[in-house]
Amino acid sequence: MDKRGTYEFRAEPFHCDFTHRLFMGHLGNYMLNAADYHSSERHFGMGYLSTIHKTWVLSRLAVEMEEMPRENERFGITTWVESAMKYFTCRNFRVASPDGSRTLGYGRSVWAMIDTRSRHPQDIFAVNDGSITEWIDAGTPCPIDKISRVKIGDGARLVRTIDTCYSDVDVNGHINSVKYLEHALDLFPLAFYAANRLKRFDIAYVAESHQGDRLSFYVETPEGAADGSGVEAGDGGNAAGEEAFSRPGIYNVRIEKHEENGAKGIEVCRCRLFFVKK
Amino acid sequence: MDKRGTYEFRAEPFHCDFTHRLFMGHLGNYMLNAADYHSSERHFGMGYLSTIHKTWVLSRLAVEMEEMPRENERFGITTWVESAMKYFTCRNFRVASPDGSRTLGYGRSVWAMIDTRSRHPQDIFAVNDGSITEWIDAGTPCPIDKISRVKIGDGARLVRTIDTCYSDVDVNGHINSVKYLEHALDLFPLAFYAANRLKRFDIAYVAESHQGDRLSFYVETPEGAADGSGVEAGDGGNAAGEEAFSRPGIYNVRIEKHEENGAKGIEVCRCRLFFVKK
Repeated sequence: MDKRGTYEFRAEPFHCDFTHRLFMGHLGNYMLNAADYHSSERHFGMGYLSTIHKTWVLSRLAVEMEEMPRENERFGITTWVESAMKYFTCRNFRVASPDGSRTLGYGRSVWAMIDTRSRHPQDIFAVNDGSITEWIDAGTPCPIDKISRVKIGDGARLVRTIDTCYSDVDVNGHINSVKYLEHALDLFPLAFYAANRLKRFDIAYVAESHQGDRLSFYVETPEGAADGSGVEAGDGGNAAGEEAFSRPGIYNVRIEKHEENGAKGIEVCRCRLFFVKK
Repeated sequence: MDKRGTYEFRAEPFHCDFTHRLFMGHLGNYMLNAADYHSSERHFGMGYLSTIHKTWVLSRLAVEMEEMPRENERFGITTWVESAMKYFTCRNFRVASPDGSRTLGYGRSVWAMIDTRSRHPQDIFAVNDGSITEWIDAGTPCPIDKISRVKIGDGARLVRTIDTCYSDVDVNGHINSVKYLEHALDLFPLAFYAANRLKRFDIAYVAESHQGDRLSFYVETPEGAADGSGVEAGDGGNAAGEEAFSRPGIYNVRIEKHEENGAKGIEVCRCRLFFVKK
């Protein structure tokens, strides 16, 4: 069996936005599905792991697209494991036309393995005598930057607080990884998406949240980022002003949860959104 | 070509809820996809209609399920046109195991055709000399009740108001039909879904809404409905109390929009949710 797996999907009309392109959140879901198919076919998927009380947990994800699939367009997602360490594996993705001739974009992800009872990290090489190493493909290129650590300064401004609901919750009983991204993208109005497109996002997961938790979204635009120059976020970042939500560039978003009886916010994830003018 | 079309889908893990069953909203999306495939293959789909400035608009939808597809389960959706009148067509759905041997549930829908410029209803038989009539299949059974008109009394109680965002908007620039259902189902907490399941919903679309509109959700539990006796909603319905959200039975939900500068709510849709104890 090939170290890489390719899975075909179609940009369903109800998964496309008003510009007739696939929603980034749905593309993220398709990538996670491809990861699941690939690992299951090679006997290190969630299905097998659940029998030994272990599971994969997505730690970080970045996707950079030159072009999003159009409504009804078919596309393939190729995925492979770039590397494996004791506590993390790196898995890459390529999104392309079904025949593979035209690249639409790439993705990178980092995964940890945990024990489903203790929630503690597990030694990946201890599973099946480290058989995952047979599938490592360090040679296939993934020509996008490594995943950003997404540093956010103290100047980030609270822009929205939402309740989490039944439809936010995944099969594990936690808020779905991709829903954080969707809620972050929902901070921007339709007019913003008419003028700009999301070229890349980086998201780092810090803690789990559950239905009933309230989520607060803090946003900053790193200095010089609104012109799209790609400056990294830092403590010198400016709080996002109202006007900022009309400009392309980088937006850093910190998401905090407030548990039902909790006062202080606890960080659950950080994401970096990079929009370019259409 | 057969009057009926069958399309296979899979309950993707990220489209399943914490009980490991497909979300009803995703099943609704799959049905609308099946309707699009079926009509497109028979040359009366949205793609062809857009070339003559017309489109299909979903007017009503009901789905009744004996069982929801499980995580990773494959299933087929068979769809056919039961009848066509000047301004409306009725399209039915059957959800079954891929080989068709085991029925999971059924759906009914009513569609209007409109002119995309004037938004006025169009004579369906005037398109292609009424060729849609060639595809009418009045013989295939759809053994669930007709779609309810979903009457809601004045006693319905406001239980939530939400903002509509980028991810709520479909390719036509309107709030996605299925998102109304998802937001209505989100009125119930996770604990409710641990004890009960949605057996049937009926939804009637009254007006379109757009990103930026605020949506208010009014709920009533018809008298006697909380015991699951299936009593129809009427003006005698009781406002839903806090305690009601823990019991199975019928919940009627009226959704009103408040446009950005608007004061009074305008009804956009009504739905009837029927939950049974697991």
